[in-house]
Formats: sequence, C-alpha cells, structure tokens
Amino acid sequence: MATYKRYRKEDTVSYSLGITLTFELLKFKTEYVNKVYIHSAMKEGETLDKLLSMCKAANIETVYTDKIFNVLSQKENCYVIGEFRKFNGKLSKDTSHIVLVNPSNAGNMGTIMRSALGFGMNNMAIIRPAVDAFDPKVVRASMGAIFSTNFEYFDSFEEYKKICGERELYPFMLNAKKSLHDVSPAGKFSLIFGNEATGLPDEFLNVGTSVIIPHSSNIDSLNLPIAASIAMYESTKKNFIK
Amino acid sequence: MATYKRYRKEDTVSYSLGITLTFELLKFKTEYVNKVYIHSAMKEGETLDKLLSMCKAANIETVYTDKIFNVLSQKENCYVIGEFRKFNGKLSKDTSHIVLVNPSNAGNMGTIMRSALGFGMNNMAIIRPAVDAFDPKVVRASMGAIFSTNFEYFDSFEEYKKICGERELYPFMLNAKKSLHDVSPAGKFSLIFGNEATGLPDEFLNVGTSVIIPHSSNIDSLNLPIAASIAMYESTKKNFIK
Repeated sequence: MATYKRYRKEDTVSYSLGITLTFELLKFKTEYVNKVYIHSAMKEGETLDKLLSMCKAANIETVYTDKIFNVLSQKENCYVIGEFRKFNGKLSKDTSHIVLVNPSNAGNMGTIMRSALGFGMNNMAIIRPAVDAFDPKVVRASMGAIFSTNFEYFDSFEEYKKICGERELYPFMLNAKKSLHDVSPAGKFSLIFGNEATGLPDEFLNVGTSVIIPHSSNIDSLNLPIAASIAMYESTKKNFIK
Repeated sequence: MATYKRYRKEDTVSYSLGITLTFELLKFKTEYVNKVYIHSAMKEGETLDKLLSMCKAANIETVYTDKIFNVLSQKENCYVIGEFRKFNGKLSKDTSHIVLVNPSNAGNMGTIMRSALGFGMNNMAIIRPAVDAFDPKVVRASMGAIFSTNFEYFDSFEEYKKICGERELYPFMLNAKKSLHDVSPAGKFSLIFGNEATGLPDEFLNVGTSVIIPHSSNIDSLNLPIAASIAMYESTKKNFIK
C-alpha cells in the first residue's frame, strides 16, 4: 500500500494543492506531471470531467485516495493534488531578470512570481541560502505562475554575475543613491532584492545603480513582494500601454 | 486565577503579538493599552528593560504568565503580548482614502495598512461584510501600521459616500476604462478595491473613474495588497520626491 510523506526539499517531486493550481500545472507543465490525486469528497460534474479528460489526453494516471490529502494539505476544500517532477530552469542572457538574494519566505517568493509573470519578468535568479522554490507553499502563493517562471539558483551573486552578461543592475536598498522615480530601465536589466528581514548588504551599493522606492518615514520598509512588484510595475510600464 | 480565551471579533480588546509590535502599540496607542504580558522565556537585558520602563512610565501593568501565550500565539519566539482596548476612527473629508470593499483576508488588510502608511494614505474606509481589522493577524501583518491608521467601517458604499464629501473616486477593476498610467489623482481622492476573489461588482464602472493596472494576460489579476500598493505608489508619487 502506498504511504505518503510530507514534502521535503530533498524530494524529486512536489505538489500542486487544489484544483485551480492543478489545472495550471496540467496546462503549463504537462510533461512533468506524475499523477493526479482525487479526494472522495470531490464533486462529480463539469470540473471533474474536465480534469479527467485532461489527464487522459496526456496519459496521466489519476488516483482516488484521501490519504495524501491528510498528509499534504492543511486547507479545507482541497480535493485535487497534482504530483510533478521538479523541473530545471536556465536563465537567458537576453531577458531582464528578477534577482532574489537570500529570500526566506515561501509565500513571498510565490507572490513575487505571480507579479513577475504579470509584468512579463518571469525570469528569476535566486541566490542561496534561499527558500525552496518547489515548496508547495511557493507553488500555491504563485497561483500557478511558477509553472511559467524560468528560475535558476546560484550559490552567490558572483556566480550569477558570471552568466548574466552585460546589463543594467538595480539593487533595491533603503540607503540607495537614486529614486525609482528617476531611473528608466531599458533593454535588459536586473532588479535585485535582499532578504525580508535584512535587505541587501551594503556592498550592493557598489553594484550597478542602487534604487530606493521613496516612502514616508512612518514605516521602516515596504514588504518584499510589494517593493518588488512596484519596481517591476515601474520598470516595465512602457510594455503595457493599454 | 485568570483564564485566557482565543481572540474573538466580539471582544472589546485585542492583542499585539511579539515585542516589536508591542513597542509600536506602546508608542502610538499608549492610552489604549491595558496590560503587557511577558513570557518566562523572555530574556533579561536592554530590550526587556526598555519595555518595563515604557510600561512603568505609562502606568501600564505588566503580567508575568505563560498561559496567554499558549492560547493566543502559535508562533515561536513570541515572548511579549500587549493587550489593548479597541479604538475608533472617524474618516475625515479632507484627506485621501483607501476604500476596501468586502476584504476577506486578514493578512492582506494588514499588509495594505503598512503600505498605506508608507505612502501617507493612512485613512481607510472598510465596507462590510469585511474581515475584522482588530484581528491579531491584521495587527501583525500591518507591522504596527494599524496603530497609526484611521479606519472606519461602513455598512455599504452608499453610507461611505454620504460622509466622504466631494472627491475623485477611483475604483480599481479589470474591466476599467482608464489605465493607471493615464490618471493623475490630485487633491483629495479615494482608491477603491474589491474583494480578493471577486473584485468590485460591475456597478462600480459608474462610480468616478474606473482604473486598471495594466499587466500581461498571463495572470488573471495582481494580488490585492500588491494592486493597492502599486495604486498608492503611483497616486502619491509627487509627495515623495527624494
């Protein structure tokens, strides 16, 4: 009999928890899906029919069991779980990047992926130590954006610099030189963000053009996904003329 | 002997969980603080001394007990809890407002309060049904911004309109008429946001000038605190020249 374990970073597979996420998985990463688990409380009807026919068309096994839900999902109303093999990304020199240096919160990483996909910046460098991008919490917070995100881990910012090619680098820092209002990223660029609690170390003041998002002194800083999203919004504005 | 219960919406008091939040509470809402609870694992030292002297100066009782922590705090490393009486806000006609219509997520509301304080828009109308702003989860996500936020609940948007005076109204909607790039809020205005899952109902298309934050079609929408923060960033830019 199958036994199910909690997700661990070392696993070769991860999970999409919930029907909406699993549809995103099936749509964008079909070839990586191992199985789709269906809970006994999943209602019959159009949605289930659609799920089953997508799985059948892609030759993906569907398994009816409640056990894996008890192990993997704390949420109610999670009746479908997709199991997928972890996939590898490789950043291209030719696109703009988001660079997360030592991100520690899974929800934040997922939220940033969602915004990044929204602003057409779905190429992400992640500098270790860092949260595991395949953690089901990242997958969920990304609302499926992770399946359209090209991300790659690096052991240090220096390692990243070796592959990123000539480009404008914009580290976001509270003691930065320039205001976001006054920079106009063009061509290829990288928006660089530090850890939630500590931000980027001071040595990043010497990397490219450091940038601050001006705000009142009544708060210490904006939260990380919000700062990253404002930066992406401003930097990609010209690509999204309504 | 004192017994402690979980926080409920009906309670007349709420709580700041953690030392940093409790310092914010003591700084900005001293007159509303009932008690400060200290856990036995709280280390002696400068931080504790500062806390005790602030409480003493404000004549606030400090209580050494571990019990309330077991009831109120799921987090580790929470060794201080502030108990405060709920306070009332009253929106002014003379300031810009954030209007949240039927917000359902506590973390989102707190995060929006933090950004709003950062962009000098700390006057918030909340249209019921809505999450309880005094939920300790809101307090925590706000990182203390709630103690500097003037918020008021209304039973309907019509009720809010009665008190808000002449002003520009900007409902944010996916099917809006104008792009955020093309509006320049000036004077007093209100930025209006709908529920996380459903957005604003279509009737808001007839309220003021509806606005969309342009993004790619690869995501359905930006998450609520991010959309609200981008809107505030853009609308208050001219006030934050570095």
